[in-house]
Amino acid sequence: MHISELPTPAVVIDRDAVRRNITAMAAVHPGARLRPHVKAHKCTSLAREQYLAGHRSFTCATPNEVLGMVRANVGDDLLLANEVLDADRLHTLAHAQESTRITVAVDSDVTVDAAAMAGLRDVVIDVNVGLPRCGCAPSDAGRLAERARAHGMNVRGVMGYEGHLMMVTDRVEKQRQVHDAMTTLAAAANDVGGDIISAGGTGTFDMFADTEVNEVQAGSYALMDTQYALLELPFEQAMWVVGTIISANDQWKVLDVGLKSLGMDHGNPSITDGSVWFCSDEHITFAGTTARVGDRVRVTPAHIDPTMAMHSVAHVIQDDTVIDTWPIDLRGW
Amino acid sequence: MHISELPTPAVVIDRDAVRRNITAMAAVHPGARLRPHVKAHKCTSLAREQYLAGHRSFTCATPNEVLGMVRANVGDDLLLANEVLDADRLHTLAHAQESTRITVAVDSDVTVDAAAMAGLRDVVIDVNVGLPRCGCAPSDAGRLAERARAHGMNVRGVMGYEGHLMMVTDRVEKQRQVHDAMTTLAAAANDVGGDIISAGGTGTFDMFADTEVNEVQAGSYALMDTQYALLELPFEQAMWVVGTIISANDQWKVLDVGLKSLGMDHGNPSITDGSVWFCSDEHITFAGTTARVGDRVRVTPAHIDPTMAMHSVAHVIQDDTVIDTWPIDLRGW
Repeated sequence: MHISELPTPAVVIDRDAVRRNITAMAAVHPGARLRPHVKAHKCTSLAREQYLAGHRSFTCATPNEVLGMVRANVGDDLLLANEVLDADRLHTLAHAQESTRITVAVDSDVTVDAAAMAGLRDVVIDVNVGLPRCGCAPSDAGRLAERARAHGMNVRGVMGYEGHLMMVTDRVEKQRQVHDAMTTLAAAANDVGGDIISAGGTGTFDMFADTEVNEVQAGSYALMDTQYALLELPFEQAMWVVGTIISANDQWKVLDVGLKSLGMDHGNPSITDGSVWFCSDEHITFAGTTARVGDRVRVTPAHIDPTMAMHSVAHVIQDDTVIDTWPIDLRGW
Repeated sequence: MHISELPTPAVVIDRDAVRRNITAMAAVHPGARLRPHVKAHKCTSLAREQYLAGHRSFTCATPNEVLGMVRANVGDDLLLANEVLDADRLHTLAHAQESTRITVAVDSDVTVDAAAMAGLRDVVIDVNVGLPRCGCAPSDAGRLAERARAHGMNVRGVMGYEGHLMMVTDRVEKQRQVHDAMTTLAAAANDVGGDIISAGGTGTFDMFADTEVNEVQAGSYALMDTQYALLELPFEQAMWVVGTIISANDQWKVLDVGLKSLGMDHGNPSITDGSVWFCSDEHITFAGTTARVGDRVRVTPAHIDPTMAMHSVAHVIQDDTVIDTWPIDLRGW
């Protein structure tokens, strides 16, 4: 099938581009040095490409992502890098750990106790390293580890996500701030014990050389978006939402890709050689290309993660030929 | 089940509030004077409430919304208020018109011809009334109607969406601009013939008294959002995304509702008595409530339409009791 035969809006992933991104990252962080974050693509078929590139351990953001990875039998070591209190979901995760190693992040007495009560075996202590979100105070990490061990759980180490530093554009300043955050994390790791010191994302992936971090949780690098393209990263755009021009006049054109098929929290998407005016539920109004009614146009999302979460399938292309269809099978919670 | 037992994030709809909104709108626009837009909720169960309030005709934004309404057997007269070029989808719609009347918007030679080729019987001419999106030039409407009739199709009239006026806050100025836009639409209707003059949305629902508009396409009024709450409308918030606080400290709290469960194009959501700092994929960081880890918090979305589209079910509540579950069954394209 040619890309122009796809019903639109349609997510397309360039197989060669995604493989180049995976290869480029694996060269910097081979094997267990990278714990790819599946929240960026929510697609076990893409995770399998990462697995085949040598990464056996993965990061997830929701219980459903963990369970989907278990069902698809991708990954030997799954980290739920998020706090969960839902007893039913924790029990389901505990059941799933019979087939795959599952480790859950905890950052409070309540989350430690909930994990223990559900019968989970492995936890990491989630440490706040500057982003105002989850994570305990660094000084509290050792105490929480003791509490988890007192429940009989295995404390594998620490994680700390420096998300507030992803988009710092001055590399020297960014390096300094990442180093400071990871010094905090390393001190907490010393209090906690275990052997995992997990951190990072696509925006900081190459800034851990002088730190004790031993695994990086990047995810967006595989597909990329216009936000991360602002940084100088060795990854290329590998995913687009393809639309059809359904209306046009001398001043503007209208594409059948809208804000229900694009993550909008980082602003408008981009169209090569086009100027995006605004997005509606099912439309982008844009100007500046020679495309006509009926033509297909590729839209580059501003934020890859929520965009993937809005679609049920991704079409894999090589040049302009559709060679495979990957279910986006890790959606939901 | 109590609302606090729902796995989160969870869409909840207050049954009494949604019924009050439906009743308030039906008092202004009874029966066929309102053609409720299902894109705002993507839920046939909610559309059935609107049907029971007397509205037999509905507006849809995607072929899948039309087909879902046909499958659920809700609505006697479905308008696809959007241009479609996909031959397969148009054929499927033509097949579905054997059981339910389906009318498709057209705004160009290409869309007229595609509808005719697929065997669709009924069209409306979509007229641009000022919003830079779909819709033909008003002066071209009559010619397109002739073209459709030459194909043997029935031209039911015109539609024109004044979306650029929804958020004008000065009511006098808004009334003037809506009147001007609808004068344009009425002139096109005169050229086109037929008996439908369809326009409007929740933000302009009560501004058609001195116009020839005979049906209003409002949708958001049933559930509402913080954007429309900025206007003085007789509709109340009837939907929230419920989350669980999964992490907290003296300065901020973290809820398990994030930008993958909230339409973000109109900005951050709101939390009663809380101050939202920012949204991440699966989190809202906020401050200012007395809520603690494990507590449930209701989040009011800034934009209802894309928020509903991110969830597979809505839980119907009365006070704090879950009394029903409605599939959000009109997602996708």
